[in-house]
Amino acid sequence: MKPVVVRNVKRADPDAVGTLEAVGVSTAHEALGRFGLMKPYLRPIYAGAQIAGPAVTVLAQPGDNWMIHVAVEQCQKGDVLVVGCTADNTDGMFGELLATGLRARGVKGLVIDAGCRDVKTLKEMDFPVWSKAISAKGTVKATLGAVNIPVVCAGVNVEPGDVVVADDDGVVVVPKKLAVETAQKAQKRKDDEDGKRKQLEAGALSLDMYNMREGLAKAGLRYVDNPEDV
Amino acid sequence: MKPVVVRNVKRADPDAVGTLEAVGVSTAHEALGRFGLMKPYLRPIYAGAQIAGPAVTVLAQPGDNWMIHVAVEQCQKGDVLVVGCTADNTDGMFGELLATGLRARGVKGLVIDAGCRDVKTLKEMDFPVWSKAISAKGTVKATLGAVNIPVVCAGVNVEPGDVVVADDDGVVVVPKKLAVETAQKAQKRKDDEDGKRKQLEAGALSLDMYNMREGLAKAGLRYVDNPEDV
Amino acid sequence: MKPVVVRNVKRADPDAVGTLEAVGVSTAHEALGRFGLMKPYLRPIYAGAQIAGPAVTVLAQPGDNWMIHVAVEQCQKGDVLVVGCTADNTDGMFGELLATGLRARGVKGLVIDAGCRDVKTLKEMDFPVWSKAISAKGTVKATLGAVNIPVVCAGVNVEPGDVVVADDDGVVVVPKKLAVETAQKAQKRKDDEDGKRKQLEAGALSLDMYNMREGLAKAGLRYVDNPEDV
Amino acid sequence: MKPVVVRNVKRADPDAVGTLEAVGVSTAHEALGRFGLMKPYLRPIYAGAQIAGPAVTVLAQPGDNWMIHVAVEQCQKGDVLVVGCTADNTDGMFGELLATGLRARGVKGLVIDAGCRDVKTLKEMDFPVWSKAISAKGTVKATLGAVNIPVVCAGVNVEPGDVVVADDDGVVVVPKKLAVETAQKAQKRKDDEDGKRKQLEAGALSLDMYNMREGLAKAGLRYVDNPEDV
Amino acid sequence: MKPVVVRNVKRADPDAVGTLEAVGVSTAHEALGRFGLMKPYLRPIYAGAQIAGPAVTVLAQPGDNWMIHVAVEQCQKGDVLVVGCTADNTDGMFGELLATGLRARGVKGLVIDAGCRDVKTLKEMDFPVWSKAISAKGTVKATLGAVNIPVVCAGVNVEPGDVVVADDDGVVVVPKKLAVETAQKAQKRKDDEDGKRKQLEAGALSLDMYNMREGLAKAGLRYVDNPEDV
Amino acid sequence: MKPVVVRNVKRADPDAVGTLEAVGVSTAHEALGRFGLMKPYLRPIYAGAQIAGPAVTVLAQPGDNWMIHVAVEQCQKGDVLVVGCTADNTDGMFGELLATGLRARGVKGLVIDAGCRDVKTLKEMDFPVWSKAISAKGTVKATLGAVNIPVVCAGVNVEPGDVVVADDDGVVVVPKKLAVETAQKAQKRKDDEDGKRKQLEAGALSLDMYNMREGLAKAGLRYVDNPEDV
Repeated sequence: MKPVVVRNVKRADPDAVGTLEAVGVSTAHEALGRFGLMKPYLRPIYAGAQIAGPAVTVLAQPGDNWMIHVAVEQCQKGDVLVVGCTADNTDGMFGELLATGLRARGVKGLVIDAGCRDVKTLKEMDFPVWSKAISAKGTVKATLGAVNIPVVCAGVNVEPGDVVVADDDGVVVVPKKLAVETAQKAQKRKDDEDGKRKQLEAGALSLDMYNMREGLAKAGLRYVDNPEDV
Repeated sequence: MKPVVVRNVKRADPDAVGTLEAVGVSTAHEALGRFGLMKPYLRPIYAGAQIAGPAVTVLAQPGDNWMIHVAVEQCQKGDVLVVGCTADNTDGMFGELLATGLRARGVKGLVIDAGCRDVKTLKEMDFPVWSKAISAKGTVKATLGAVNIPVVCAGVNVEPGDVVVADDDGVVVVPKKLAVETAQKAQKRKDDEDGKRKQLEAGALSLDMYNMREGLAKAGLRYVDNPEDV
Repeated sequence: MKPVVVRNVKRADPDAVGTLEAVGVSTAHEALGRFGLMKPYLRPIYAGAQIAGPAVTVLAQPGDNWMIHVAVEQCQKGDVLVVGCTADNTDGMFGELLATGLRARGVKGLVIDAGCRDVKTLKEMDFPVWSKAISAKGTVKATLGAVNIPVVCAGVNVEPGDVVVADDDGVVVVPKKLAVETAQKAQKRKDDEDGKRKQLEAGALSLDMYNMREGLAKAGLRYVDNPEDV
Repeated sequence: MKPVVVRNVKRADPDAVGTLEAVGVSTAHEALGRFGLMKPYLRPIYAGAQIAGPAVTVLAQPGDNWMIHVAVEQCQKGDVLVVGCTADNTDGMFGELLATGLRARGVKGLVIDAGCRDVKTLKEMDFPVWSKAISAKGTVKATLGAVNIPVVCAGVNVEPGDVVVADDDGVVVVPKKLAVETAQKAQKRKDDEDGKRKQLEAGALSLDMYNMREGLAKAGLRYVDNPEDV
Repeated sequence: MKPVVVRNVKRADPDAVGTLEAVGVSTAHEALGRFGLMKPYLRPIYAGAQIAGPAVTVLAQPGDNWMIHVAVEQCQKGDVLVVGCTADNTDGMFGELLATGLRARGVKGLVIDAGCRDVKTLKEMDFPVWSKAISAKGTVKATLGAVNIPVVCAGVNVEPGDVVVADDDGVVVVPKKLAVETAQKAQKRKDDEDGKRKQLEAGALSLDMYNMREGLAKAGLRYVDNPEDV
Repeated sequence: MKPVVVRNVKRADPDAVGTLEAVGVSTAHEALGRFGLMKPYLRPIYAGAQIAGPAVTVLAQPGDNWMIHVAVEQCQKGDVLVVGCTADNTDGMFGELLATGLRARGVKGLVIDAGCRDVKTLKEMDFPVWSKAISAKGTVKATLGAVNIPVVCAGVNVEPGDVVVADDDGVVVVPKKLAVETAQKAQKRKDDEDGKRKQLEAGALSLDMYNMREGLAKAGLRYVDNPEDV
């Protein structure tokens, strides 16, 4: 890894970002072909936030938040900061002061494959964070990493400018060149679901709605009346 | 395992179910003789729900929710759906649309040894779920499992029709043939606790209330005044 | 380990305790030199509580809460009860009745390296607990441990009378002989942060506020305009 | 749970047991329809052992091995002892002396959903154990459990007399009433694999041997020459 | 993700691969600037193997090894197969028959972010595997993935043709364009270590060899004679 | 924590150390009253070593092995080095060169609550290590810790000079002031076990040897002939 900061980031299409934020993580993930989902150990520090934005990426050393300070300057309004680590770490690499700086630049939230602290204050500020742990463990500023290079965060490779979508279901990354196409598919999926929800509320069975009965029978599913018949 | 759906389930006594729902998990678990508790990695997706109902059981393949769709049709008003998996899995096998279908049939909630998604919507619907993870990971419909056979879920063997009690403390399973007896013991326990609570609020020590001092002395507990005397 | 209860505990300075409660865990941990933090698997059973108090310590056997009953009698108004275990355990060793007894004596809360139950009621009582797990698993009263000896809890050695500070960020232990000095440093730190927050809200960069640019350049950080230049 | 010891166990067919021991876990598990496999956290304390035998089952309390002592008397030559726990536990509930007693009765090995100790001696004795942990943590003899009732061990429900097959790949449980049928299928599978191995050694592709190409194409798999063509 | 197989892989320089295999993982990882190391949960199924080779990559669905069968055909002599998964999974996606096919093509070994089975036979075949788990759990062949696209495996993004180095210390990935440079640095490092080892064997202190004393003093390290002086 | 090195360590009685090394971890742990055992996630990097020695202690920062270099100078022949960390960490903080330096001073082995690397070489050197992980992840030398102060390692508080006993069953710490007494009890225990082993080999039941039958009956254990009688 070279210790470097890349200044220019080609960001994903803003309209696609808007659509993906509106549909949320589960729908975006399906629209992308069930791909790009970060591992579920990444959890929001409080419930209810739903955001999307182009990624500014940080590669940090475990227990060292020096490069997060460096990254703030590279952020623009609407961005989401994404921090990966060179080794597993739960230290509280991010807190209130960094959030204040990011908020001042219009950053929407943070996704970090490490720990977060000051969670009560962050909730009061309404600055959402998805992290691996909550920990007060302080960090040093001693070793370089990089900003705006591709980083692996919670199992997903994130390129700077990719769309990061995050809500209570987790975090999904949509590559910027697939953003427009994925947003369209996601919107269509969302619209379809509204119709399905109404049918189900009226008592329809998904078995019938999706015509599953024939496939199940072909695969060999048997119905019996009683346990003794198994 | 045979790929089969058993239609008829002998359900536990409804009055016993009602009592067990009212007393909650910790009391029901004690009344059953400290047995039948699912592993504590199973957590409610939101706080505050407290339910009990006869189990409709599903054995599913990891990352495949086909059999949950099949199970919906076998559910009756007041049931709790219980999903076990043939291998460890955190994928989001359950979400808003399945919940809408179950809700339309009067199902009280879901216990799943895998992941759940659409958690924000499920909370708005007030449809409680106890799961191993929250994950947007989509699932396939490719391999058969079974419905209403005994399944192991989070470390407990569940027979169809057994009483599933779930609240913020976890999930306990009361075998249907022990339901009435357990409900009676649980109610008695609950009543006793009310008396104890009042004594404790008034400053009584449990050491005295339970006559522990003699047993402690016999077992060899010593009281000393200062660290140097240890 | 000798099965013993030590009656007299030298408790940390009350004013220092008050200051540490007000500043919270992250600041107290930094003021102590980034030390004494319990492992982040210890989580509050509900969000929002912030307490500090001298430790009354318990060493318990896994799945056995006999010594917690013994410890209640040794607690004074303002104390925090700290329970360590001789082996990893998630059983619900603490619940509503014990909390009622502790509350009657003015105890502020509990830190336990094991499980907790009755969490809904504990929240209603506003009795905060930091635990490793939430579990209804009942416990026995069969084997002795000790009260008010040094215990390791979630990775930290706690002496009776040390200051336990706990909030949404976790739990930190300040040795009683360092309490006054740490409280002073923590207060100063808190005051400094207020100034920094204002600068950051106004758009200042922490890179400039902390004069990091020179150090980064010395360490070899390079800025490039585009990915191709890396 | 009732504290009880069941004396008479109907054991699985001995010939089927012999076949299942010879084919090993992976083949037995496939022959059973990919079912009955214990969770992979269960590991042999040393490599190379391969056993099968009817289960004598124990339900134990965490950190308490009283019921294992009780179970020894119920074991016969060729049995495998299976220990489940009412809560997660890693204590060393089994060691050299218990193994000596079991060995004297002809027991083939132990499967325990908890910890094991004296592992160096057990290896020298060639007494194989599959456990969740290796731990010297001593246990008490204070609370009853049960012997020869159905127990859940590492995620699988085991009935007394079921066939337990264990080797370096893990542990699978074959219900006694399916033992003969499963042993036959497993033997056939093993024979088939010998032929396949020879073809593969000679350079055949499984893609061709199993006629996968058509299915892959139908499902939509595309072959391209270069990354740019994706 | 598009379901695709890329046929042509530009492989890293063979001489660099040879050097990296000879120096092993720890040295290669240091030479790369402490980067590219897979997470330590990936362990060899037996001790002692040390390999390096260009990566052929597979993206598989959890519990589905269809794409591994597809990938065999794309492998050349000296390659290392790398399998990533779209979700966490411990199923035994790889075993003896696939290893036989790969061995016939001269593949050196497998790195898989999932489970492996037939470990006893694989050891006898001397076919090394680094996996997340050992599990007999059988898999299906139902859902497409991809071959020779970039995949994240155990926290590292792997491009087809990158050098995979694996031994008892873990697995590191050296990007193909950095392979030659990294191999040179690694060789130099290895040579230097031989000299250092001799000095240390003769009783030299690393404190002196690396001139650490001044830096330690500057950072504030104090030496005292007795605990009371701390 | 103060960044300090304490030069003089009062070491435990050498004869007691010798006895404890001979009896091993499980017996020493029982003799100490089932106390002082490190968590079982600490495992030997290879099987078969059995050591005991006075502790030289290190408190290190995660991912930083500076203080281990400092500690080497404080070690004497027969010591065991014990490294605790201020936060969870799996980085390879220890390897071949440090082992060479320690070996030159006669140190018996290392216990580290973090990762270890060069494990193949360490095994060839016959330098035993008990660690939390095996990882090639390189570390920095940037932040101070301390040497020969009390440190918590894998859940146990270790004072400099305490006896560290380690073998395939784990690691136990015997406080130096209890070393002689514990060694005597351990030796007696070992002698007793020899007699018991012979009885068990001859077919005696531990149920009878320890007179458990009466206690079991009193506690309510029932024997029944068949499952139907439960």
